[in-house]
Amino acid sequence: MKIVIATDSFKGSISAVEATKAIERGIKKSFPAAATYRVPMADGGEGTLDTLVAATDGKRVPVIVKGPLGNEVEAEYGVLGNGMTCVIEMAKASGLILVPSHQLNPLEATTFGTGQLIKQALDDGYTSFVLAIGGSATNDGGAGMLQALGLKLSDRDGNELPFGGAALQKLHSIDFSGFDERIQGCQFLLASDVENPLVGPNGASYVFGPQKGATAEQVALLDDCLLHWANKVEEATGVHLHTLPGAGAAGGIGGAFQAFFPSKTMRGIDVVIEHTGLKTTLEGADLVITGEGQVDFQTASGKTPMGVAQAAQNQGINSIILAGSVGVGIDALYQYGVISVHSIVNRPMTLSEAMENAAELLEQSAEQVARTYFYH
Amino acid sequence: MKIVIATDSFKGSISAVEATKAIERGIKKSFPAAATYRVPMADGGEGTLDTLVAATDGKRVPVIVKGPLGNEVEAEYGVLGNGMTCVIEMAKASGLILVPSHQLNPLEATTFGTGQLIKQALDDGYTSFVLAIGGSATNDGGAGMLQALGLKLSDRDGNELPFGGAALQKLHSIDFSGFDERIQGCQFLLASDVENPLVGPNGASYVFGPQKGATAEQVALLDDCLLHWANKVEEATGVHLHTLPGAGAAGGIGGAFQAFFPSKTMRGIDVVIEHTGLKTTLEGADLVITGEGQVDFQTASGKTPMGVAQAAQNQGINSIILAGSVGVGIDALYQYGVISVHSIVNRPMTLSEAMENAAELLEQSAEQVARTYFYH
Repeated sequence: MKIVIATDSFKGSISAVEATKAIERGIKKSFPAAATYRVPMADGGEGTLDTLVAATDGKRVPVIVKGPLGNEVEAEYGVLGNGMTCVIEMAKASGLILVPSHQLNPLEATTFGTGQLIKQALDDGYTSFVLAIGGSATNDGGAGMLQALGLKLSDRDGNELPFGGAALQKLHSIDFSGFDERIQGCQFLLASDVENPLVGPNGASYVFGPQKGATAEQVALLDDCLLHWANKVEEATGVHLHTLPGAGAAGGIGGAFQAFFPSKTMRGIDVVIEHTGLKTTLEGADLVITGEGQVDFQTASGKTPMGVAQAAQNQGINSIILAGSVGVGIDALYQYGVISVHSIVNRPMTLSEAMENAAELLEQSAEQVARTYFYH
Repeated sequence: MKIVIATDSFKGSISAVEATKAIERGIKKSFPAAATYRVPMADGGEGTLDTLVAATDGKRVPVIVKGPLGNEVEAEYGVLGNGMTCVIEMAKASGLILVPSHQLNPLEATTFGTGQLIKQALDDGYTSFVLAIGGSATNDGGAGMLQALGLKLSDRDGNELPFGGAALQKLHSIDFSGFDERIQGCQFLLASDVENPLVGPNGASYVFGPQKGATAEQVALLDDCLLHWANKVEEATGVHLHTLPGAGAAGGIGGAFQAFFPSKTMRGIDVVIEHTGLKTTLEGADLVITGEGQVDFQTASGKTPMGVAQAAQNQGINSIILAGSVGVGIDALYQYGVISVHSIVNRPMTLSEAMENAAELLEQSAEQVARTYFYH
C-alpha cells in the first residue's frame, strides 16, 4: 500500500512539512506497514520557499536587503536540493508581512529588495530561478527590482527616480547600460496564478491596490503611473504590458519580468509540483492525501489540493482532501479525481482551538479516513 | 450497493429518524442508485419509545398519570407496528425531564405514574411489554409502580404508605390481595444496562441518587430505606434484591420487576435491535452507518453505535460511525467491526451551531464518508 501525502500548510497553524508528518503518523497508527511518501506542497505564494527547500532538502541563504519601505530587512533566498535552482520568494523582501498594516504605503513601497535578492544569487553563481511573487506590498511595476539590478530610471532632469509606484509618473528615460548583463543568460520561472493585465480596471492597481492599503484616489493615481510606466517600457523594449495577461501580478512585477527578463510563467502549484518531483513520487500510489486550511469552491481554481489531485488523476490515482474548514461547492473538485473532502475538526471547537491542535486533528482524521478507504 | 443507516438521535439536536433521513440524503447525492435502509435506533433509554414506534410504524396512546411529584402529567405508551408489543418509557411518567432541577426530590418522587401506564396498557389488552427505564427521577424501589397496580404497602398502623423512597422506612406489611392478577400472564422485557445491586455503596441510592438531587445525607437515608424495602420484599417474595445485579436500576424499579413481575432484562441496545428487526434489515448489506451525538471510549460499553456495529459484525458487515463529537479512546470500537469514526463538524463552530445544523452536517459528512468508502 503506497500513500502519497502532499498537503499545503494549514495557514496560521501548521506548516506543510508538519502537516504531512502528522498525516503520516495517523496512517501509520492503523497501517504501520504502509509505504508513505511525504511531499510538502505550496501553491506558489507565501511558503513556497520553505516548502521547496524542505521538500528537496535544499538550503537557505540569508541576505540583508531593503524592505518595501526602504528599511533594512533580513531576507533570504533558497537553493533547491539539486544545488542549481534558486527560489526567490518576493514576500520575504517586498511583502505585506514586512509592513505593519498602519504603515502600508503602496505609493512608495518598492520591489528593490527583491532585485537585491536576485543580484546576490547572481553573484553567488546561480542561473536558474523560481520566483514566487505572492503577497507583495508593492505597486511599482517592478521598477525597484530593475533599479537594484542596474537599470537606470531617470526623471526629466536626469535624476534617479525614488522608490515607489507614485514616482513612476516622473519617469523620463530608461537606461539599460548598467543593467546586469548576467540576467540574459539566466532562466526565470514565475510561479503566478494572476492573469490580470498591468493597467485599467482589471489591472494591478485597481484589483490588488486596495489590499495593499491604497485608497480609491491612490488607486487611480497608481493606475495612471503604471500606464505611464507601460508606455515608457514599450518605447524601450517593444513589449506592450498594458493588456498583457499576468503583467499585473504582484503590483506589476509580473510585467517587469515579461519585458526585461528571459522568463516564463506557470501556475504556482504546477511550479511546485515540478520542483518537488511530485509526479515521480506519485508513480504507483494507491491514494493521495492532500489538503490545506480552507477548502471550498475556490479550491478548484488552482489551489494546492486541486493541483495535486490533477497530477494524481493523470496517473489514475484517487485523492482525498483534508481541510480545517470545508466550505460550499466542493463538488467542483470531484472532476479532478478528488473522491472526498473531510474536515479535521472532530467536535465543536473554536478556530483557535482547531489551529492549536491542528497536528493532532490531522493525525486523527488521517487515520480514520485511511481506515475508511482501505478497510473493505 | 446496500447501505443500512442505523443511528441513535443526536441528543438535543436531531432525532434518530431525522438523523437517518439526513444520512440517506447525503448518500443518495453521490450514489442515487444505492439501496439505503433506515433503521432509527435508541439505546433503551430516553427516546426508545419514539424510536421503536417510528422504526416499526407503530402508534402512541396518551395517558394522564401522576408525575414523579404526584402532579398530573401527560404521558403515553407506545404500541409497536406488530400491534402486540407495548413499549413503556419510564421517563415519560417518572422522569427527570418532568421535574425542574430546583424541584428534584428523590425522597418523595414516585414511580406511581409508570404503574399507571402499565395498568392502562393492561386494560387495553396488551400482554407483552418492553420497559425502557432510563432517566428516572425516583429512588422508591418501584414501590409507587406496585401501588398503582394494586399492591398494598402499609405502615404499622395499616395506613397506605405515601409516595417516595423515604416513606419506605415505615413499611410494615405487603399485601398482595389487590395486586393486578393480569401481570402474571404477561411478559416484561426490561431494557437496562445497569448492573448495580439495590443497596450498599454500589446500589441505587449511592450511585444514582446524587444525579436525582440527593444530598450526601439523603443518599444515606435512601439507602437505609431501600435496605428495609429489600428486607420486606424478601420476606414477601423470597427474592433477595439486596445484591441482585440490575436491582438497582432506575431507583430500584429494576428490583421491583425482578421480584414481582415475570420479567427478563436485556441490554438496552439489544432490545432495540430485536424490536426494530435490525438483524433482518442488515442481511446482505455492504456497509452500516451508525452514530450518535458523542462518541468516545464510553461508546464501547453498550451504547447504540457499538450495539449496531456488533450486530453488523456478526454478519460480516463493516460499520462507520458518524458523531457530533469524537472523543478519545475510539480505538476500543474497532474490535466490534467499526472501521472508522468521523465527526460531522466540518469547520470550527460552536456547539449550538453544530446542533442547529446537524441535519445538513450529517448529510454532508455521510456523502463524503460514503464516497471515501465506495470509490476505489
